[in-house]
Amino acid sequence: MASIWKNKLALSIFGQSHAPAIGMTLDGLPAGIEIDMDVLQQFLNRRAPGRNPWSTTRREEDIPQFLTGLVGGRTCGAPLTAVIYNQNTRSADYENLKKTPRPGHADFPAHVKYGGFQDVAGGGHFSGRLTAPLCIAGGIALQVLAEKGISIGAHISSIGSVTDLEFDPVNIGKDQLQDVAEKEFPVIDDGKGASMKGIVEAARKESDSVGGTIECAIIGLPVGLGAPMFDGVENRLSSLIFAIPAIKGIEFGAGFDVATMNGRVNNDDYYYDGDVVKTRTNHHGGILGGLTTGMPLIFKVAVKPTSSIGRQQNSIDMSKGENAVLEVHGRHDPCIVPRAVPCVEAAAAICILDVLLEEGRL
Amino acid sequence: MASIWKNKLALSIFGQSHAPAIGMTLDGLPAGIEIDMDVLQQFLNRRAPGRNPWSTTRREEDIPQFLTGLVGGRTCGAPLTAVIYNQNTRSADYENLKKTPRPGHADFPAHVKYGGFQDVAGGGHFSGRLTAPLCIAGGIALQVLAEKGISIGAHISSIGSVTDLEFDPVNIGKDQLQDVAEKEFPVIDDGKGASMKGIVEAARKESDSVGGTIECAIIGLPVGLGAPMFDGVENRLSSLIFAIPAIKGIEFGAGFDVATMNGRVNNDDYYYDGDVVKTRTNHHGGILGGLTTGMPLIFKVAVKPTSSIGRQQNSIDMSKGENAVLEVHGRHDPCIVPRAVPCVEAAAAICILDVLLEEGRL
Amino acid sequence: MASIWKNKLALSIFGQSHAPAIGMTLDGLPAGIEIDMDVLQQFLNRRAPGRNPWSTTRREEDIPQFLTGLVGGRTCGAPLTAVIYNQNTRSADYENLKKTPRPGHADFPAHVKYGGFQDVAGGGHFSGRLTAPLCIAGGIALQVLAEKGISIGAHISSIGSVTDLEFDPVNIGKDQLQDVAEKEFPVIDDGKGASMKGIVEAARKESDSVGGTIECAIIGLPVGLGAPMFDGVENRLSSLIFAIPAIKGIEFGAGFDVATMNGRVNNDDYYYDGDVVKTRTNHHGGILGGLTTGMPLIFKVAVKPTSSIGRQQNSIDMSKGENAVLEVHGRHDPCIVPRAVPCVEAAAAICILDVLLEEGRL
Amino acid sequence: MASIWKNKLALSIFGQSHAPAIGMTLDGLPAGIEIDMDVLQQFLNRRAPGRNPWSTTRREEDIPQFLTGLVGGRTCGAPLTAVIYNQNTRSADYENLKKTPRPGHADFPAHVKYGGFQDVAGGGHFSGRLTAPLCIAGGIALQVLAEKGISIGAHISSIGSVTDLEFDPVNIGKDQLQDVAEKEFPVIDDGKGASMKGIVEAARKESDSVGGTIECAIIGLPVGLGAPMFDGVENRLSSLIFAIPAIKGIEFGAGFDVATMNGRVNNDDYYYDGDVVKTRTNHHGGILGGLTTGMPLIFKVAVKPTSSIGRQQNSIDMSKGENAVLEVHGRHDPCIVPRAVPCVEAAAAICILDVLLEEGRL
Repeated sequence: MASIWKNKLALSIFGQSHAPAIGMTLDGLPAGIEIDMDVLQQFLNRRAPGRNPWSTTRREEDIPQFLTGLVGGRTCGAPLTAVIYNQNTRSADYENLKKTPRPGHADFPAHVKYGGFQDVAGGGHFSGRLTAPLCIAGGIALQVLAEKGISIGAHISSIGSVTDLEFDPVNIGKDQLQDVAEKEFPVIDDGKGASMKGIVEAARKESDSVGGTIECAIIGLPVGLGAPMFDGVENRLSSLIFAIPAIKGIEFGAGFDVATMNGRVNNDDYYYDGDVVKTRTNHHGGILGGLTTGMPLIFKVAVKPTSSIGRQQNSIDMSKGENAVLEVHGRHDPCIVPRAVPCVEAAAAICILDVLLEEGRL
Repeated sequence: MASIWKNKLALSIFGQSHAPAIGMTLDGLPAGIEIDMDVLQQFLNRRAPGRNPWSTTRREEDIPQFLTGLVGGRTCGAPLTAVIYNQNTRSADYENLKKTPRPGHADFPAHVKYGGFQDVAGGGHFSGRLTAPLCIAGGIALQVLAEKGISIGAHISSIGSVTDLEFDPVNIGKDQLQDVAEKEFPVIDDGKGASMKGIVEAARKESDSVGGTIECAIIGLPVGLGAPMFDGVENRLSSLIFAIPAIKGIEFGAGFDVATMNGRVNNDDYYYDGDVVKTRTNHHGGILGGLTTGMPLIFKVAVKPTSSIGRQQNSIDMSKGENAVLEVHGRHDPCIVPRAVPCVEAAAAICILDVLLEEGRL
Repeated sequence: MASIWKNKLALSIFGQSHAPAIGMTLDGLPAGIEIDMDVLQQFLNRRAPGRNPWSTTRREEDIPQFLTGLVGGRTCGAPLTAVIYNQNTRSADYENLKKTPRPGHADFPAHVKYGGFQDVAGGGHFSGRLTAPLCIAGGIALQVLAEKGISIGAHISSIGSVTDLEFDPVNIGKDQLQDVAEKEFPVIDDGKGASMKGIVEAARKESDSVGGTIECAIIGLPVGLGAPMFDGVENRLSSLIFAIPAIKGIEFGAGFDVATMNGRVNNDDYYYDGDVVKTRTNHHGGILGGLTTGMPLIFKVAVKPTSSIGRQQNSIDMSKGENAVLEVHGRHDPCIVPRAVPCVEAAAAICILDVLLEEGRL
Repeated sequence: MASIWKNKLALSIFGQSHAPAIGMTLDGLPAGIEIDMDVLQQFLNRRAPGRNPWSTTRREEDIPQFLTGLVGGRTCGAPLTAVIYNQNTRSADYENLKKTPRPGHADFPAHVKYGGFQDVAGGGHFSGRLTAPLCIAGGIALQVLAEKGISIGAHISSIGSVTDLEFDPVNIGKDQLQDVAEKEFPVIDDGKGASMKGIVEAARKESDSVGGTIECAIIGLPVGLGAPMFDGVENRLSSLIFAIPAIKGIEFGAGFDVATMNGRVNNDDYYYDGDVVKTRTNHHGGILGGLTTGMPLIFKVAVKPTSSIGRQQNSIDMSKGENAVLEVHGRHDPCIVPRAVPCVEAAAAICILDVLLEEGRL
């Protein structure tokens, strides 16, 4: 129980980095939805590696093959299954990892959990590559939401110490979300983006990596979506967002900044904007008591620096029970943050679509 | 679907602030567990209001009555149901809230969601009072975990701009966790605690409130607990932690600080401490790939300032469709952080116990 | 994990026969529903014992106390919790059962499962008494469904070798369902009912018991409710129906009779009745491929003879590890079938209401 | 939400009869299990069509391709995905069904549910062909159970009016289960089997079909598996068994025969057989109160006659809103019962493996 998630929608993600394929099954979509395969591919390309200097030079053609669930390009009510056949052959690169786990990776706990039977090649099922099928499901969910006037967009909020501008938490519009998303390097302030690229490049040269944060906004939501307690929108979003490897934190609205705020500042005053109830500020991030308020839903996540780095690191040799030194070769992203941006959108889209379907609002 | 959570354990929380009772049903505990009612009551007292100057003066006697699930003080395999009968009578204090929602509360989205039928008295089902039954379940879970050598402890990490020391992320011991938990004002550094109390008192005097952060540590966990993707320990913990009202963010290990770290720093080197595999640092917070590593599991949450403040605030009058001014009377906590500490421990304990049971490790 | 069920609706049933209370929490009902407490009590009375010669003389006042979830008699969106405080004191009647399990009861497997910690008094959590809270939830579900034009009714289909008439599977109407339900002894043919009572009385005189079958019909359902495979209407109904102790079988439409039918007979021809698509026969029982067809949904269940009988039976003494003879005293129903009729309606109502809510059809 | 089932194990079944592929993902298997592909293929062959005179002449090569989850032939802890690529091209055979639904099939309710977007070719996702991936998952589960000493076997209990012998409900052994399963026509009494084949052949000649029943036994189970109420073994088995199309009823132990039994007969006396607690009869079918008793778990299911028959039938033309006559061509099984036997074993195996894993007993 791990890689199949079931609520009103259900999503199964399968595959290992060097298995014959990776893929996903999405069940519970309404019938009759036309999937725009070009738009989907463009979305997947945002995550795909090897397309620009700041990601790994390892190029993967992530073109999904739809095996089931479509008739004439439209959903037919049956589960939608798509696979990406892996091109990489099983390499000897990773054999060493069976005994010497990489710091920052799941190698060690996976070894203990699976008794040594885990697939180590390319990180196996723990590989960041498994976010490709997540993006297939999420890309489809984004299309369905867009039809209903709901937009989701994310951008790099920071890399290292360089910080992008923030979305306007009160007035952010659909166009801004889309414009940022369409950028090759998704930041609001391209000058800051240039500085970030410099940081990434510097890390690459030192065979090192660097982390960052991503901000995501969801607009067009109805009021009152969600539930108190266990099924609140924060619970559900965070539960899905942490499916993305390398995410170490999530905060909604003002997030950790609430710690230093007083109530009279943090409380967002209500007012009527015509017939619509709005708040003048949006520290609550569009969610109160687990329910959406109709204001933009805004959250931020922390992305750790890529664990795979080309430097010597201290580890252990489990076959001998002694300390050891590890040097990992291969091509790695010096910074995973840009490629994680569509993954965050994808996970958010799946979550929001699921809540809408569950509440019969679609 | 909101207040019943089901996995290997199942937890149902029911009640409204001014209903005849609040309570909980916990199903799935092993049979034969002896619950120490005194220890449980001490734990509940840590959350109870009215016991010290920094919480509300509204005193509630939160003494659970166990209706089912026990035979001779031991669990019998049947669901465990406990209720706390409410002493507060339904007051007129809250009638105004049906038309004028409080900023920072769930009043407005709940009004829309439930079509005006929601219980507004005392915040109804959205009241922080509902964390009392959460703590009944969590207090029991803590006892079961303690028997298995697993300890959970939390402390106030910050209030306003005053920051406590942090748990030693590598060497923290059971005694320190317990010592901090037993303090009336749970901080590591009592000097900092005194400053925090000053901040709370200042907020109270201004009819304002203040937020903060809580750090929680879990020690004694086996290696390999959890799962990749959707059922990782981060997913599961965050999903339950956000059931606590006022939590706006969660981060694991170095959390949002990973954004400014390089891989070679963030990666925690492995080494053998005798037979035991450890990491020299613990930026990963005891979880990699959704699996526990055996290092202390450490996370931090952000708690927003109490929404209920005794100052005039701008809101709306939904009965007239126009802007309005709201003044809330009554007794409120100027800072919810101290009382939220046991709630965080409770939610974490339920989560961890559930994972252990699900994996057949108990 | 046992007594809490969660889907779009969630239902928690708690209590033991001799615990302070039994009860239920129902979560997920729409807000604003007015519950007619008189109608609910009448429904509960159909299940209650001690009201007529063919059930146990043990009289229980099953009057639910609603602790949460209601404001002014209407649901408020919060979980609905009702309890029935047990009047029976813990008796010594059952102490013997800890070592000598009753044939036909759960005593033995429960003893093994719970390591001897199970509550044996009155059958504990396995008691048929736990169907009272099921009927609270079901009685409320029936009221909600009735508002939407969906009626559920059941009758005794057989006791021993005496068989009642069957519902007209094609034309059964709401009035007939209701008329049968309102009978003190719910059969279509009262003459057959008289014979059945004779059989029950004969069993009682011999300190024996007798089984039977119950037929249930659901009318007013929309077409296309349900899902293929794991979430079909049959899967869901059977999963809930088997929560009723003593049920040993379930069949839909022609059920086990399909075994001897040919396809050309079993297939139900379609035709237009005005604008409405109907079938001329209803061997499929209103479900095809897991989906409702709009025809009456009809199923039958088998109810075993009451396990508790006042005769000497062969059993074992687990404290000595040897065979033993058991004689059970106390007052027992010689036939549980009449009291199981509303239980079947209740379980069906919960299932159907859940599917409707899940599909956003309510 | 339909074709993905999640508990401790999770199973996703995808595909349509004429889509590029059908397949399944099974998640939650322990790592390190070696799957015997030959044994699995033999099991799948028992379900495959075209191998003998009593099934359809349409031959399908149901050879699964494992895309994920295996390393060196062993499970690696990641989800196991296998697909069967469909050989059949999309034929025009079925176009007519979009307007004229076949009696006894899901065509009509599916049309309404999916708004006409459903895949009608070959029955789409409702096709009996989808039991092939169920058998992949089940065949693997059977292998895991066999390693633990748990055997599951089923046989044709009846076809039309011809009835096979029954398993000895008390003493049935592993060898008998296996012997029956290995027969090409799985009956205990081959003479009866010959008569059944005659009935099937007669139905075929008349372009008709015939139904039957299947009896299944599970031996080697521990005592106390399962739970009361909603998660009892009957609830869980029936919920999975009804995933098999054409099943219209299920009964445990004496099943519907309990209706005519008295308690003193139906109650199964306990006794010690050495150290082991047994019952002298097994009317309870190995389950009491939702828990296994250690006696053979026995249940029977009703299988309806194949809905697809080559005779003229009355139906409707939905494009015109008027009655119509339907004639279905193509090759169909005159009796689905023999091929359903391994499907029943498969569903039962998945259920039992799941319960064992959930309770940490494996």
